[in-house]
Amino acid sequence: MAVARQASTIGPGQPAAARIASIPHAQDAEKIATQIDETNVLPEPRPLLHLVLGRPLETAAAPHQTIGKAIGMAVFASDALSSVAYATEEILLVLAAAGAIFFSFALPIAGAIAVLLVVLTLSYRQTIFAYPGGGGAYIVARDNLGEGPAQTAGAALLTDYILTVAVSIASGVAQITSAFPALRPYQVEIGLVLILFMTMVNLRGVKESGRAFAGPTYFFITMTFLMLGVGFYRMATGTLSQIQGVEMITHNTLQPLTLFLILRAFSSGCTALTGVEAISNGITAFREPKSRNAATTMMWMSGILMTMFLGITALALQVHAVPSERETVISQLGRTVFGGGALYLLMTAATTAILIMAANTSFADFPRLCALHAGDGFLPRQLTYRGHRLVFSWGIVTLAGLAALLIVLFEGDTHLLIPLYAIGVFLSFTMSQAGMVVRWHKISKLQPGEEIRTEGSMLSYDRHWRVKQIVNALGCALTGVVMVVFAVTKFSQGAWIVVILIPLLVLGFFRIHHHYQHVKNALSLQARPIDVRTHPVETIVLVNDVHQGTLQMISFAESLGKPWVAVHVAVRPEKTARVLEKWERYLGDHGTLYVLPSPYRSLTGPIVRLVKDVKREHPDAFVNIIMAQLVTESPWGQLLHRNSGPQFKFAFQRMQGVAVTDVHYRVGELGELTEELAR
Amino acid sequence: MAVARQASTIGPGQPAAARIASIPHAQDAEKIATQIDETNVLPEPRPLLHLVLGRPLETAAAPHQTIGKAIGMAVFASDALSSVAYATEEILLVLAAAGAIFFSFALPIAGAIAVLLVVLTLSYRQTIFAYPGGGGAYIVARDNLGEGPAQTAGAALLTDYILTVAVSIASGVAQITSAFPALRPYQVEIGLVLILFMTMVNLRGVKESGRAFAGPTYFFITMTFLMLGVGFYRMATGTLSQIQGVEMITHNTLQPLTLFLILRAFSSGCTALTGVEAISNGITAFREPKSRNAATTMMWMSGILMTMFLGITALALQVHAVPSERETVISQLGRTVFGGGALYLLMTAATTAILIMAANTSFADFPRLCALHAGDGFLPRQLTYRGHRLVFSWGIVTLAGLAALLIVLFEGDTHLLIPLYAIGVFLSFTMSQAGMVVRWHKISKLQPGEEIRTEGSMLSYDRHWRVKQIVNALGCALTGVVMVVFAVTKFSQGAWIVVILIPLLVLGFFRIHHHYQHVKNALSLQARPIDVRTHPVETIVLVNDVHQGTLQMISFAESLGKPWVAVHVAVRPEKTARVLEKWERYLGDHGTLYVLPSPYRSLTGPIVRLVKDVKREHPDAFVNIIMAQLVTESPWGQLLHRNSGPQFKFAFQRMQGVAVTDVHYRVGELGELTEELAR
Repeated sequence: MAVARQASTIGPGQPAAARIASIPHAQDAEKIATQIDETNVLPEPRPLLHLVLGRPLETAAAPHQTIGKAIGMAVFASDALSSVAYATEEILLVLAAAGAIFFSFALPIAGAIAVLLVVLTLSYRQTIFAYPGGGGAYIVARDNLGEGPAQTAGAALLTDYILTVAVSIASGVAQITSAFPALRPYQVEIGLVLILFMTMVNLRGVKESGRAFAGPTYFFITMTFLMLGVGFYRMATGTLSQIQGVEMITHNTLQPLTLFLILRAFSSGCTALTGVEAISNGITAFREPKSRNAATTMMWMSGILMTMFLGITALALQVHAVPSERETVISQLGRTVFGGGALYLLMTAATTAILIMAANTSFADFPRLCALHAGDGFLPRQLTYRGHRLVFSWGIVTLAGLAALLIVLFEGDTHLLIPLYAIGVFLSFTMSQAGMVVRWHKISKLQPGEEIRTEGSMLSYDRHWRVKQIVNALGCALTGVVMVVFAVTKFSQGAWIVVILIPLLVLGFFRIHHHYQHVKNALSLQARPIDVRTHPVETIVLVNDVHQGTLQMISFAESLGKPWVAVHVAVRPEKTARVLEKWERYLGDHGTLYVLPSPYRSLTGPIVRLVKDVKREHPDAFVNIIMAQLVTESPWGQLLHRNSGPQFKFAFQRMQGVAVTDVHYRVGELGELTEELAR
Repeated sequence: MAVARQASTIGPGQPAAARIASIPHAQDAEKIATQIDETNVLPEPRPLLHLVLGRPLETAAAPHQTIGKAIGMAVFASDALSSVAYATEEILLVLAAAGAIFFSFALPIAGAIAVLLVVLTLSYRQTIFAYPGGGGAYIVARDNLGEGPAQTAGAALLTDYILTVAVSIASGVAQITSAFPALRPYQVEIGLVLILFMTMVNLRGVKESGRAFAGPTYFFITMTFLMLGVGFYRMATGTLSQIQGVEMITHNTLQPLTLFLILRAFSSGCTALTGVEAISNGITAFREPKSRNAATTMMWMSGILMTMFLGITALALQVHAVPSERETVISQLGRTVFGGGALYLLMTAATTAILIMAANTSFADFPRLCALHAGDGFLPRQLTYRGHRLVFSWGIVTLAGLAALLIVLFEGDTHLLIPLYAIGVFLSFTMSQAGMVVRWHKISKLQPGEEIRTEGSMLSYDRHWRVKQIVNALGCALTGVVMVVFAVTKFSQGAWIVVILIPLLVLGFFRIHHHYQHVKNALSLQARPIDVRTHPVETIVLVNDVHQGTLQMISFAESLGKPWVAVHVAVRPEKTARVLEKWERYLGDHGTLYVLPSPYRSLTGPIVRLVKDVKREHPDAFVNIIMAQLVTESPWGQLLHRNSGPQFKFAFQRMQGVAVTDVHYRVGELGELTEELAR
């Protein structure tokens, strides 16, 4: 009887059983209540749903466990590490516009990105120590910069989470079609199936034990370092061949290699840095000392990322890999280094797996961030509801829908999606680091030993505040510049979509917030006196036809014990005559049926006028409108009837002090009902 | 006060004003009633809707007028005559599979079709005299053969009406793109725009004055005869040139000219006969003597149709017109005869116009036949409702949707649609003539002077019954054979769709009928004693949160004067604690709030169990569930709230003796409400 206990702790004093007991007319109340508690524990059986999504989980079943550094790396690094699967290729693709002879510029560009990574890692390391409870950009910006920057950072991150799914899935599919070119025409379909699969897995709920993640992440790290090792060894021994027969994406006219083009290549390469912030969101998942473990993991991750990215870029140039429509650069590299056998297929499998894992990271982060926004009233409240399996179902479905839309619109092509990608992440980097700079400024005002609690963290005196502030300021400035470079150089290629979208999202967030505030004020009990006085009730019974369901409705209206009038709207004159005749015959003793003319065949219009007039004459009265609603055995049968209920509901819902009562009657069981009621 | 008068004739004795007057508590009842009557006459202003569809029409405004033979021809002939725009081309297209040298077979095939037309006309002439009230296949089959054949004939006709729209629109667009090849890539879009336009025109309601029809029909007849006259004159004088530069649709390998292929060509040509039955549906529209006028019009129509079809086929062979992807045969003919100038464009315009008119005929006939089926309970009842402008809106929208779907699926290509077309019409011809054969058999049993009334017509003694029966039997046999030939020779090209569809439709019609019969029996007042006794009412008030809306709901529940219990479903423990605390503070004096545990976060589950248990303990009681429902100013705002109303409604609707009461509360106007209620 776990639930009865739970309920009794919720209620003020009384156990649930005793409370339900006082339902009027319920002689065996205690017994009823006991039954309720017991049956309630088990949800209704819904075999198909449970097969797909698993059995529902109790609210109390939310997991609480922590992870070590090795597993932490597996859980949080997949997003960052997976980007080496496409970053080098995207640099080469931009340089290809000027001609293959300029491919050698890729290495210094990758070097510049590596420098940026170092600054970013140092900068974020400080955030991890400052926000041991979780230091996502939204939280840091909200804590230090206020609501506007926080919503901007959130909007930017949400946009990028959607793009992470789309880009990672598109790139994962490209790895598959590189190895199996026959699947190329189905790349959109494969992408959609992968998204559907991930949606289902995530609706079931992923146990973040990390074990599932550890496999793909370490498999990918192992395979990549093996490839780099073998590659550099063969290069040193002069046995590394060059790739042949891959058709490069061609440009009709070659552009000169301008600074603009180099910056564009740099922007494309910066997609390698997406996901490095992931650890700062998940500090609480680490074992104690949380911040230190998280920071160490981040350093390791950055080191591995940098090594892989520089190594892949250098080797790709060495084997003369080219951006192509048919095969990804990393696949060309693997094929050349390993010679196309089982090791090559393993490398492709590892790359595909880590990309899918990266997409899966967004399936965890997006719904969580949505719930955070929604909890603060900036997104629809439904995003905070936990579904069937305790996950934020609405967020998962929203993410899947939007990512699938992107895959369809951009035909599952990584190259077309990349210009939209990473702006959001860099905007959130900038916001987050700017928040940290402000935070150091606040700390600079403190005396040694002094501490101040903020909503998100604890400010305490720090002797080295100036140095640390400079690190964050450098991170802020660099990421801000990169974001602007990104937006400018990729603007015409698709970045404009994001540049327009993020402000619109922020605007939308504030409009939603305004709505909730407005509703809250309107519903507040503090502003006005508490008034639950009774009022007269005018009851209007809507009669569409006279049959068993009508009898039940009249029986209900009489049982309520208030005077009522029955009205019929004369939509079709020939029917009206029949209805009146039947009413007189069967129900004439119980009251008169009033006919409202409706020359324009409106069902609701005449009743709305009547109710308005009654309300005008008796503003202090409630109007209770009673309708009978036919319920058939099957939903298909339901479609064969007028189903005017919602139409009436819609017509009346904007009127004050009006209640609408539906008396449902089931076809096929009315006999039973009548017998039951007659007993 | 036309409406008050109308209402008083509907009601049993009392005028509407006096009847409404007795609404309880209404001191100024007479005044209210007067207002209702007056305001009711004018529908609510809805500017956008009225701009598109026109002002609503009163039920009393249904038109009653009759037309003469000349106008009758214009109204009913467009469907039949328009088919000469594609029939010749479809014959040539089939023959092309064996090679252009066999095109000369087209003329004897057209001759055979002309013979069929003569038989059909004579046969239908007898139907017109037998059913002066309208002798569509559905009515004739129902009257003589029973429900099954009638539903089959109806299903066949409905299918063909949809195809008439699709084929006529596709062919009309082909005429346009023949004259303006630049529009060819947009043929689907043009077709959809035409359908949308026709939908709007028909939702506005076409005044069947015939004047609108007379223009296009006589324009087309004039232009066609002009073309035939000029063509044969130039042929006689040897100045008729041959068409050049039209690329024929090519076949990779030529087939031998088998009987099968000739029959297929014949079937394709038989599309020329679609629509000849139209007059038999519309006899009542003619002036007296209705049957004679209708029959004369039909003879004229058939004569014109035959002349045009044979003339076009003969001339098309003469100018060596070929079936082509780029230009229709009739366009090639017009261009050759008229030399491509203004007359050619006028001919194309006339052809396009008559094809659109033909499609429009279906927009009148399909909804009418649907309403006939629906009135007999074989299609959803909604199809009998007259909309805003007194037209059968549901039927019009259904037809437009299905025809648009066909245009999209078949890429607006007439040739692909033709194999589906005309099977339905020939099936309905067969059914109708078979009905007539049975009717003559009944008549053969009568004595001179004897008469019998059937549902659809009057059987009276006829000396010549045997001859007339033979005519109908011949018509029945010939159309039956053609239908089978059609289905067999075109089966693999698309006819299989219709062969499968029609039986499925008939099955569906009978299932619908069964449903309505079942509901009718279940609701019948005759089977069981009339029981409107009162029962106890158990009231359960659902409390989601405690705010102004809750106060209004509690106020309503108290106003009803029945004992009630308030329950809250504990979906989220942290919220439940807050709600209980607020309840105790503000509403604790009015009753206890009971908490139902919901460990699996189901909102409805616990309440459904509670209601079931209450029903089990008190089967004789009604359960009234009162909910508060938030209504925001805008529909967008509404999306930001849980909107659990429909969810509860769905959960409770299958339970017997349960009523659901929604107490709506508007955000933003609650202040006003409270003030009003407080007065």
